[in-house]
Amino acid sequence: MPKTETFQDLSLVSSGSHGELWRWLYTELRAAILDGRLRPGSRLPSTRSLAVQYQLSRGTVVAAFDQLQAEGYTHTEIGSGTFVASGLPDPPLSSPRTKPALTLPPSTATLSKRAIETLKGITVMPAPHSVGKAFRAYEPAIDLFPVELWARVAARVLRHAPRSLYGHGNAAGYPPLRRAIAEYIGTSRGVRCLPEQIIVTSGAQQALDLIGRFLLDPGDPVWIEDPGYPGAWQTLRATGARMIPVPVDQDGLNVVAGMKLSPRAKLAYVTPANQFPLSVTMSADRRMELLNWAVGAGAWIVEDEYDAEYRYHGRPVAALQSLDRSGSVIYVGTFTKMLFNALRLGFMVLPQRLVGAFEAARSFVDRHPPTLDQAILAEFITEGHFGHHVRRMRQTYSERMEILKESADKDLDGLLDVTAAAAGMRTVAWLKAGTSDKVAAERASQLGLEVMALSAFTFQQKQRPALILGFAGCNPDELRRGVSVLATALRGSPALR
Amino acid sequence: MPKTETFQDLSLVSSGSHGELWRWLYTELRAAILDGRLRPGSRLPSTRSLAVQYQLSRGTVVAAFDQLQAEGYTHTEIGSGTFVASGLPDPPLSSPRTKPALTLPPSTATLSKRAIETLKGITVMPAPHSVGKAFRAYEPAIDLFPVELWARVAARVLRHAPRSLYGHGNAAGYPPLRRAIAEYIGTSRGVRCLPEQIIVTSGAQQALDLIGRFLLDPGDPVWIEDPGYPGAWQTLRATGARMIPVPVDQDGLNVVAGMKLSPRAKLAYVTPANQFPLSVTMSADRRMELLNWAVGAGAWIVEDEYDAEYRYHGRPVAALQSLDRSGSVIYVGTFTKMLFNALRLGFMVLPQRLVGAFEAARSFVDRHPPTLDQAILAEFITEGHFGHHVRRMRQTYSERMEILKESADKDLDGLLDVTAAAAGMRTVAWLKAGTSDKVAAERASQLGLEVMALSAFTFQQKQRPALILGFAGCNPDELRRGVSVLATALRGSPALR
Repeated sequence: MPKTETFQDLSLVSSGSHGELWRWLYTELRAAILDGRLRPGSRLPSTRSLAVQYQLSRGTVVAAFDQLQAEGYTHTEIGSGTFVASGLPDPPLSSPRTKPALTLPPSTATLSKRAIETLKGITVMPAPHSVGKAFRAYEPAIDLFPVELWARVAARVLRHAPRSLYGHGNAAGYPPLRRAIAEYIGTSRGVRCLPEQIIVTSGAQQALDLIGRFLLDPGDPVWIEDPGYPGAWQTLRATGARMIPVPVDQDGLNVVAGMKLSPRAKLAYVTPANQFPLSVTMSADRRMELLNWAVGAGAWIVEDEYDAEYRYHGRPVAALQSLDRSGSVIYVGTFTKMLFNALRLGFMVLPQRLVGAFEAARSFVDRHPPTLDQAILAEFITEGHFGHHVRRMRQTYSERMEILKESADKDLDGLLDVTAAAAGMRTVAWLKAGTSDKVAAERASQLGLEVMALSAFTFQQKQRPALILGFAGCNPDELRRGVSVLATALRGSPALR
Repeated sequence: MPKTETFQDLSLVSSGSHGELWRWLYTELRAAILDGRLRPGSRLPSTRSLAVQYQLSRGTVVAAFDQLQAEGYTHTEIGSGTFVASGLPDPPLSSPRTKPALTLPPSTATLSKRAIETLKGITVMPAPHSVGKAFRAYEPAIDLFPVELWARVAARVLRHAPRSLYGHGNAAGYPPLRRAIAEYIGTSRGVRCLPEQIIVTSGAQQALDLIGRFLLDPGDPVWIEDPGYPGAWQTLRATGARMIPVPVDQDGLNVVAGMKLSPRAKLAYVTPANQFPLSVTMSADRRMELLNWAVGAGAWIVEDEYDAEYRYHGRPVAALQSLDRSGSVIYVGTFTKMLFNALRLGFMVLPQRLVGAFEAARSFVDRHPPTLDQAILAEFITEGHFGHHVRRMRQTYSERMEILKESADKDLDGLLDVTAAAAGMRTVAWLKAGTSDKVAAERASQLGLEVMALSAFTFQQKQRPALILGFAGCNPDELRRGVSVLATALRGSPALR
């Protein structure tokens, strides 16, 4: 039996969590084996004596030993102890050979030129620490999401799904979810499609990204609404396409203006149901103009809908896609606004002739969406929970919008004119002409509100100063508190009164 | 009270599921409202009488009515009935205006030129209907995955997660998961990193895709192992980069050969722990050569590990990343092979100076990975279930590999020489010199096996004929059955004997 090695050269780290200590001990022991301080066949000290020697818990030492054994560095003989494995192959990572690595100079490798261009001005939004903050515009009412119901459906699906659902999935998405989506948007939005035309994506954002990557070449002109959605701008220009901001008026995107700016654009990005951020609905005439232009120009139309189901006044307007018989429109939808952001499931409805290409694209971009999340969502829809939740939220958001409007009319009279939103999860609140919405939004955010300036969404077209206020995610108390804080912010700044 | 309208012009569809009938009735009623057959304020027939008239269940009619009401087309007066809503705005979708849409000619819009090039030769793998088929190489042992345990952890996380986890998440991933991954790969693979260097991705494939998009410009030369992984080839060349196949020998990628072919490549893609598909381990000398070359050339090294934890003989070899002090190596890992494919969670470990750029990239590519899936996985790891599962699978896969080897030595003696894999989830089985592995794989697949020809993974370097056989996902009976079928396939074809 070879003699027990000692560890004079191991120094004790005195701080750190249990996890870190365990890892530290494992790493030190492994290093000792790798560089020959612990020779093959030699016995390790007992876990008890190591624990005493280094003032570690027994569990910490055992965890380190377990890992060493699991990786084949050691083996245990019952009654005798733990030994360094013998017959190890040539040590490829032994210290003499790793030494040169330490002398490597820093790498000079770079991002691509395209990436440097693309990433300019992209800011990353961190995850917020709480939900329902006034006047966050990107969140539905997460406070009212039926978490217990979702957990129950999820547990059932995970337990009873056939094992094959844990294996490789379909690039285009889980077929029952595609059927459920086709049925839902057929009835709720008038979208005409077969389930086969639906590609499930990681939120609407991935749909826009795939569209940019596979439909646009560098230099291709793209119509984008001005003011408009920065998320679309960022991803569509990433391929090197040329963004053409087209003005938006009361009737939505001004098609005639677009035709003057760039008659042969390759693609037009629009939000007809509830324009982002102006909240106007595209008129029927404009829809027809846009379709006729697209067919003539050989252009794609991307119709992005994210909160069209929430309409509070008047009749819901069917999707632009429902008018299209030419195969020009790609409809993009998402569940992140209808259920919760973290879900990351959206979809696009493609003209038939694009389906194969996007399926292939998705398969090498990231293989396929998570199957079990899709199966849970499919169950949630087909059991009727989704429709029920949407109807309930429509009522809730309508009430929240009224509360915002009433509070603002009372507390912000003369300072801010809040539009009664006809649809969606946010509204436009007009400031006095001549004031700066950037300054107003900054003042509000200094007081802890989440408020966006309309000018942050304008590309070229000057707009009247306004704030974009989300209301759907905020409960009544928070909305009233937000209005009162906003009043302080606007009254406190002479430039804004 | 206005008179009740009749529906002479509605024709009954006689087939279809409940869901389809409901949708049909809803669509017909909506159309009748939209084109004026049902005028504002007019009363609809009772659900009972409609059900009788059209031989529908009462539930079907009620569902259609509910949807109409939810969308604001109708309203109900208790005791009086259901009425078409009055005061609707100008009908943007009324039939006279939609008519022109029907006459649109087909769109001539196209894919981008780049996409047409990129998508050439991409084949989409459909989701298989069952798990564990011999000799599928991309699946772990899904039959042994602890589904009940996963469902329990999932239900707990979903119920007790703070509401903010249902909101917007971090582009780089859920922080506790990033910490758990950093700790795990630090101990199991020797990867040196802080949690901040980890970006959680949608499987390893998305990591490779982001790397291609943000590190490569069109025309950039890229070293890729030959034979090698098509998934990497497909996505790295998608930016227009120039693929340089570099031969692989017993010691892994031949760095000297690579330097002759393209000394100033921008990136090298390697699988050092268990080369895909040859299953060789990159030697220590080659690792140092590769690192030294990369630093000198200002090149990135992408180290793709997918099954390195499964090592059956000899000592585990730490990741190449653990030798790098220059910041040249990007380490890519995945949970799809360690847990189950459908999970779609992987990660990359970036040199510090790339972290901000990739976080920004991810934020507009698809925002962030699904938070709750990440929270479930983080719990699964920190509670020790993950380590336990990996150790159990290491034992299982080692046994399955032995069974494959023994059965093959017995039944395929002289026809196929199955290598005893030292690591991973698949092995190389050599055919007789001069035979065609494509023919052999085809014969096997005609008999229902899933077998890949080595030549399917070669880009330029000719290889001896061989089959790639997966064993990890197949239970012992299926492995033995597979070997017997494979014997039939090979014996039945004179060209292969």
